[in-house]
Amino acid sequence: MTLTAPLRFDDGVLLILDQRALPAEERWLRCERPSDVAEAIRTLAVRGAPAIGLAAAYGMALAADDFDAAASELAATRPTAVNLRWAIERVREAGPDGALELAHQLHAEQEAADHRLAELGAERFGEGDRALTHCNTGPLATGGFGTAGGVLRAAWQGGRLGQVWVSETRPLLQGARLTAWELDREGIPFRVVTDGSAGALMARGLVDRIVVGADRVAANGDVANKVGTYPLAVLARHHGIPFYVAAPVSTLDPDTPDGSGIPIEERDPGEVVADAPALNMAFDVTPAELVSAIFTEAGVLEPPYPDAIRRILARPEAGLSDRSAGQAAPRRYP
Amino acid sequence: MTLTAPLRFDDGVLLILDQRALPAEERWLRCERPSDVAEAIRTLAVRGAPAIGLAAAYGMALAADDFDAAASELAATRPTAVNLRWAIERVREAGPDGALELAHQLHAEQEAADHRLAELGAERFGEGDRALTHCNTGPLATGGFGTAGGVLRAAWQGGRLGQVWVSETRPLLQGARLTAWELDREGIPFRVVTDGSAGALMARGLVDRIVVGADRVAANGDVANKVGTYPLAVLARHHGIPFYVAAPVSTLDPDTPDGSGIPIEERDPGEVVADAPALNMAFDVTPAELVSAIFTEAGVLEPPYPDAIRRILARPEAGLSDRSAGQAAPRRYP
Repeated sequence: MTLTAPLRFDDGVLLILDQRALPAEERWLRCERPSDVAEAIRTLAVRGAPAIGLAAAYGMALAADDFDAAASELAATRPTAVNLRWAIERVREAGPDGALELAHQLHAEQEAADHRLAELGAERFGEGDRALTHCNTGPLATGGFGTAGGVLRAAWQGGRLGQVWVSETRPLLQGARLTAWELDREGIPFRVVTDGSAGALMARGLVDRIVVGADRVAANGDVANKVGTYPLAVLARHHGIPFYVAAPVSTLDPDTPDGSGIPIEERDPGEVVADAPALNMAFDVTPAELVSAIFTEAGVLEPPYPDAIRRILARPEAGLSDRSAGQAAPRRYP
Repeated sequence: MTLTAPLRFDDGVLLILDQRALPAEERWLRCERPSDVAEAIRTLAVRGAPAIGLAAAYGMALAADDFDAAASELAATRPTAVNLRWAIERVREAGPDGALELAHQLHAEQEAADHRLAELGAERFGEGDRALTHCNTGPLATGGFGTAGGVLRAAWQGGRLGQVWVSETRPLLQGARLTAWELDREGIPFRVVTDGSAGALMARGLVDRIVVGADRVAANGDVANKVGTYPLAVLARHHGIPFYVAAPVSTLDPDTPDGSGIPIEERDPGEVVADAPALNMAFDVTPAELVSAIFTEAGVLEPPYPDAIRRILARPEAGLSDRSAGQAAPRRYP
């Protein structure tokens, strides 16, 4: 676990690094009941698809005799990220007595998956590459090494990255607040830009690759991710720039045929503007046809995605042989 | 002049509505010297290409015996909008004694031009249309009726507009603060969205037309406008949505062959984020090929733009015959 891991289970309590207060303040929330965790997820004290899955798993471990109620409450916090429901169902299967052990195991699996997909993704990078990323997908978002953020770190450590453009990611500024904070700690050169600046950067030839995370990947490869991702994919296509998605296998959702079936969370308009009517869609959907590759811990997926995704989900062993030392492959539930 | 006109020359003083304080507070700056006006333009107390041109014209009228120095100081405030230099040169030609009268004349011309181009643009709209706009291009930005904002008002008044999507326009939120304020006063239905949301809106079929202003239109039709405009144009093309630019003839710049020659202002990175390195490009360039039409007071320009722009600039009389009652056509300088 890195310095910036956002979750720590300690002495019967889940400690959650309150990401709403970063980077100004490092404040930890003490969660003693599942409802404390649900509140932390709902209010974005912890966010990022893999990290909220882990938080929910630990939250289940905090349930006393209300195990199913905890599962329901935690699953209802946010609709878009499929990892959340995936983790909850795995812990529910394990039952109250096995919950904490499984939560820890999922956490370890997430770390291993992050490292593996980061290595695979970094291989696509070349020396001096200027990469653009959106939102936050580092350790804060996964509890491990990061997805897209992990790819950037691995590329940097491997001498395959020159600089990162960080889109600030309105309305809650996960790029400007969280990704900037993480990159700064890693010593990776970066500059923050407004979300509307990506087009100008690409037009000037200042972006070699784009890499983002995902909250859910449908069976056909359509990708739901933080709102603002889809415009980046359209711009990337317009400019012939590779557009990558980095996500653990737990983000793949075979039960949702395509992006039109992914529920898109609408959050409080007040997050956008205080005094005027607003629409606050938290995510958008990038059609599979705009995605150059999807980096997972079980391998790099390439078009046609329906086949690639089906293959990976049908044969977890195939993923396992490809993974780093000794970690169990994540299994789909059911 | 409307209630929200941002400039008032009164008793030897230029009063500038401080747009940095809107919508929270209606505060007026008293400018008694050209340098006061230059400071107001530089710090965005007054902004919008036509409005800063008018402010500079009035600023010249405040010059005592330092007429040329005032012209230089005012011209150096912001590099991208060509209206600024255009207005300054026209007032310089008029000389110190004619400066105030010409500034008033330019102001009246701007109002007339706005009305005319707004009418012409509104003809392209249909009942119930949902339009998306960026930044602020209403009365606050022009001193008159507005450019893109004027088109929206005229369309609304003509029953040709259902709703406006207002992109908030980071980093300084001219959409969320200023356009929302103007639309609210007009009673035009609108909702603010983050700049990254435009793609999701278009993908959902919620945008029928896009209309934006311009800070400079090159001789080939390339358009410099508030950063974030270019991504909207690329998305519009991807979705087959008309993308319009509304700008007075004074925004056309025959001396700049194409967008690569337009100086793009970089502003203080601190406008984007306080604690991290940032790049703050204030504008981007939309290639002419992505622009469906340019609404000017002298007519609607359509591709091929080089010919259309040359024709309009060569024959101001053509523009005149097309303009509303009795206003002189703006002339290019030199």
